Amino acid sequence: MPQSPTMQTIKKTEPKLLELKNRLTEINDIEAAASLLYWDQATYMPPGGAAARGRQLATLQQISHSKFIDPVIGQLLEDLRPYEESLPYDSDEASLIRITQRKYETAVRVPAEFMAKLSMHRTESYAVWAAARPANDFPAVLPYLEKTLDLSRELANFFPDYEHIADPLIDFADYGMKASFLRSLFADLRKELVPIVEAITSQTPTDDRCLHQHYPEEPQLAFTLKIIEQLGYDFQRGRQDKTHHPFMTNFSIGDVRITTRVYEHDLGQALFSTIHEMGHALYEQGINPRYEGTPLAGGTSSGVHESQSRLWENLVGRSLGFWKFFYPQLQAFFPKQLSNVSLDTFHRAINKVGKSLIRTDADEVTYNLHVMIRFDLELQMLEGSLEVRDLPEAWNERYRSDLGIVPENDSDGVLQDVHWYTGQIGGMFQGYTLGNLMSAQFFEAALKAYPEILMKIEQGQFSTLHNWLTQNIYQHGSKYTAAELIRDVTGDALRIEPFIRYIRQKYGQLYTL
Amino acid sequence: MPQSPTMQTIKKTEPKLLELKNRLTEINDIEAAASLLYWDQATYMPPGGAAARGRQLATLQQISHSKFIDPVIGQLLEDLRPYEESLPYDSDEASLIRITQRKYETAVRVPAEFMAKLSMHRTESYAVWAAARPANDFPAVLPYLEKTLDLSRELANFFPDYEHIADPLIDFADYGMKASFLRSLFADLRKELVPIVEAITSQTPTDDRCLHQHYPEEPQLAFTLKIIEQLGYDFQRGRQDKTHHPFMTNFSIGDVRITTRVYEHDLGQALFSTIHEMGHALYEQGINPRYEGTPLAGGTSSGVHESQSRLWENLVGRSLGFWKFFYPQLQAFFPKQLSNVSLDTFHRAINKVGKSLIRTDADEVTYNLHVMIRFDLELQMLEGSLEVRDLPEAWNERYRSDLGIVPENDSDGVLQDVHWYTGQIGGMFQGYTLGNLMSAQFFEAALKAYPEILMKIEQGQFSTLHNWLTQNIYQHGSKYTAAELIRDVTGDALRIEPFIRYIRQKYGQLYTL
Repeated sequence: MPQSPTMQTIKKTEPKLLELKNRLTEINDIEAAASLLYWDQATYMPPGGAAARGRQLATLQQISHSKFIDPVIGQLLEDLRPYEESLPYDSDEASLIRITQRKYETAVRVPAEFMAKLSMHRTESYAVWAAARPANDFPAVLPYLEKTLDLSRELANFFPDYEHIADPLIDFADYGMKASFLRSLFADLRKELVPIVEAITSQTPTDDRCLHQHYPEEPQLAFTLKIIEQLGYDFQRGRQDKTHHPFMTNFSIGDVRITTRVYEHDLGQALFSTIHEMGHALYEQGINPRYEGTPLAGGTSSGVHESQSRLWENLVGRSLGFWKFFYPQLQAFFPKQLSNVSLDTFHRAINKVGKSLIRTDADEVTYNLHVMIRFDLELQMLEGSLEVRDLPEAWNERYRSDLGIVPENDSDGVLQDVHWYTGQIGGMFQGYTLGNLMSAQFFEAALKAYPEILMKIEQGQFSTLHNWLTQNIYQHGSKYTAAELIRDVTGDALRIEPFIRYIRQKYGQLYTL
Repeated sequence: MPQSPTMQTIKKTEPKLLELKNRLTEINDIEAAASLLYWDQATYMPPGGAAARGRQLATLQQISHSKFIDPVIGQLLEDLRPYEESLPYDSDEASLIRITQRKYETAVRVPAEFMAKLSMHRTESYAVWAAARPANDFPAVLPYLEKTLDLSRELANFFPDYEHIADPLIDFADYGMKASFLRSLFADLRKELVPIVEAITSQTPTDDRCLHQHYPEEPQLAFTLKIIEQLGYDFQRGRQDKTHHPFMTNFSIGDVRITTRVYEHDLGQALFSTIHEMGHALYEQGINPRYEGTPLAGGTSSGVHESQSRLWENLVGRSLGFWKFFYPQLQAFFPKQLSNVSLDTFHRAINKVGKSLIRTDADEVTYNLHVMIRFDLELQMLEGSLEVRDLPEAWNERYRSDLGIVPENDSDGVLQDVHWYTGQIGGMFQGYTLGNLMSAQFFEAALKAYPEILMKIEQGQFSTLHNWLTQNIYQHGSKYTAAELIRDVTGDALRIEPFIRYIRQKYGQLYTL
């Protein structure tokens, strides 16, 4: 039962907390170096560096893992238990002990030999996929994917007290979300979305040719920087570089970087990938600096993280109000291309809905259908109700039923996403849809607190929204679970209704629903 | 006594060599990550990353050091001794064991507590110097420099079997070079150089205004890249980025990077710093790939490393033949600035000799005088014949006697170089002059083997020289000491004559000697 700490308790326990923190910071430093190795590999590393880089990354990951599962850490956590219980649940110190304890319990359950086996398989499987995808060669990956399924089950079974075998795997990314809950949540969502997609896609397709003119790289990059600076990204504590597959990474709370890519015949790529990654970055830049170097210094779950990238990318960045402010500036950057394109045409183009095959290119209405197909197939494979060899057929069948189109080949079908080919089936996709749902639920809460946010967006002012997000979500880092955060911030459990309301309202204006 | 290994010896010892190698590669990986943290800090890191970056660097250095001094490594080396003795001295395996043994013995002699104390002092001392230099405030650094001297003596005394107290400190950078030898070598050099400098500087100063026109940054960078590509720098295994103080660094034999800085009113800065750092990089890129991840994979000493940067920068890059080839291209890059400047004028400008105060800006005739002043003062302080508080006076006195000018303030005098303020007095400067001497001695040997090298330079062909250097120096990494290498490559001990011959010949054509 929680009670106030006596001075004696503090005196006895503080040195142990300090030792724990020192050890955690050392581990954090190694992980930060590994992140920098990765960032560099994806941005500036010359080709000749690749072989050693893979080895260096593996070395650092192995060292940080073995330092974390050191029994001394277990003992410190054990010794700190009474101290933790004497503190309020949401105090920084109790939270640090609690979150470290959770991560420690997860880390120590997986034997080092399994980790090594998985790591080797991961490398092999990725290499085979990277060759098989352009060759449209599912049979080549099949044996690897079967082994991935075996290893994923083996991994899950190190946590045998599960309700569904996917639960431990989901926990890694979205702690506390259960397959049974997600299945039912997603089924409800699908039921709502399929008819909306049907209604939209039976209408005349939106003309988005204005986005596919020639847009030179340099002004595109300059414009993205201009936008994110105004949105509140802190360039004193971050920077943007070019890469192949955009991502956000951080080496400390003071150094949170994003990457982007530019397509000269698709204006949307750099624009929205930049805002997306910036959303992730605002979260990390907004964490309480006191958490620096500890496990609290990071977004709390894959879903909450994605809620921030999607909130800024979609709810803000694809809104009409946002472009009321920014479109004249975009036109000034690209007068040749856009001076004769109206704001309305542009806004419709960036919100074009269509049945498509590739998840990462999907619009925000169909996007979750792509995700949920993958989530359901993961569960079926783990349960044993779907054989890996039957995956392409099951994939194509779901595309037919949910989206009304079928991939012509596996490259655009079951081979398109890297996730399953990096050594895990299960827990890889739910975060995307959770993020979309949360983004709408958080945004509704923000608007309820500050209805002027929408008007301010039209004036290019984002600090009210940014401050609200920092106050309610960002500053806490990993202190609260996603479920705790949603409850605290929105006063409700996670629901599909805010997202559906958002989609109906926005797309009801763009299409006939 | 060396003897051929029997199969049985190999069977027994190879697993231990493999274990040693694995441990060394792990340490190398950590050091590579630390190097990347440093490279990033000096090139792209946003200001907000600084605090955590210092901590991260210290963490990785501490981990790699403690892994290297692990008694298990000592035991492996001990167990491998008979195996090493059964192999030829210059075999890769014997060399790996020998060089590791040498570095291990050095590393274990210094207690961890001392390392921690030194590391803290280093950080403090550097910070105080960084503020004191612009403020011209020697009294501010005085107590720190006094402590640095104490710590340097303490460090040297962990290796008590020295002839001169500076020897162990010199060994860290230029293994095997003794203070007594260097003192006498440098005294001979000084005797030769002072009258040459006197003769040159009594003549009308060279007009180098052509270098100080406005040269925009972009074409400057493009031209440096063009030059080093032709010189043989491999961009598949390297890249150039901008920084404040140019340096070369490497994360593997396949990833050897250089940095440069551009001054828009001083064409020589980017040009020659780029060729200089490229010389360091060619050395590292040329190391036998079999040494990857081991202590053999790096230049063998500070002097040999500097010999390569200076050989390419000066003996090649400031030669008339070199510019016979490149000057028309430079003119094409900067027609406005250079079309009316003759090759002869340009060549004289980039080789202007003058009495100056700042080592890093000095020409190749006076440069060694700057270095030897610092070297002598280091020895005197370590010996106790010069008090730290009397250093500015001694410094100024030597500038008067050797170069005929006196700094107007300590900022341009005793405060100008960072070296002493990073926590060590002794062993910090000899490498620069050793490098200059070796550069001429190696270049003479290359010309003796391939006299056509000079003609090929005029044709923009550098592979004969590059191949000779790779064959004779680069590929060996740290296998041989500097002294062994000089003896093997030039058939002689290190001498000042080749450098003096080079200076007399080149500057005899540019000035009246």
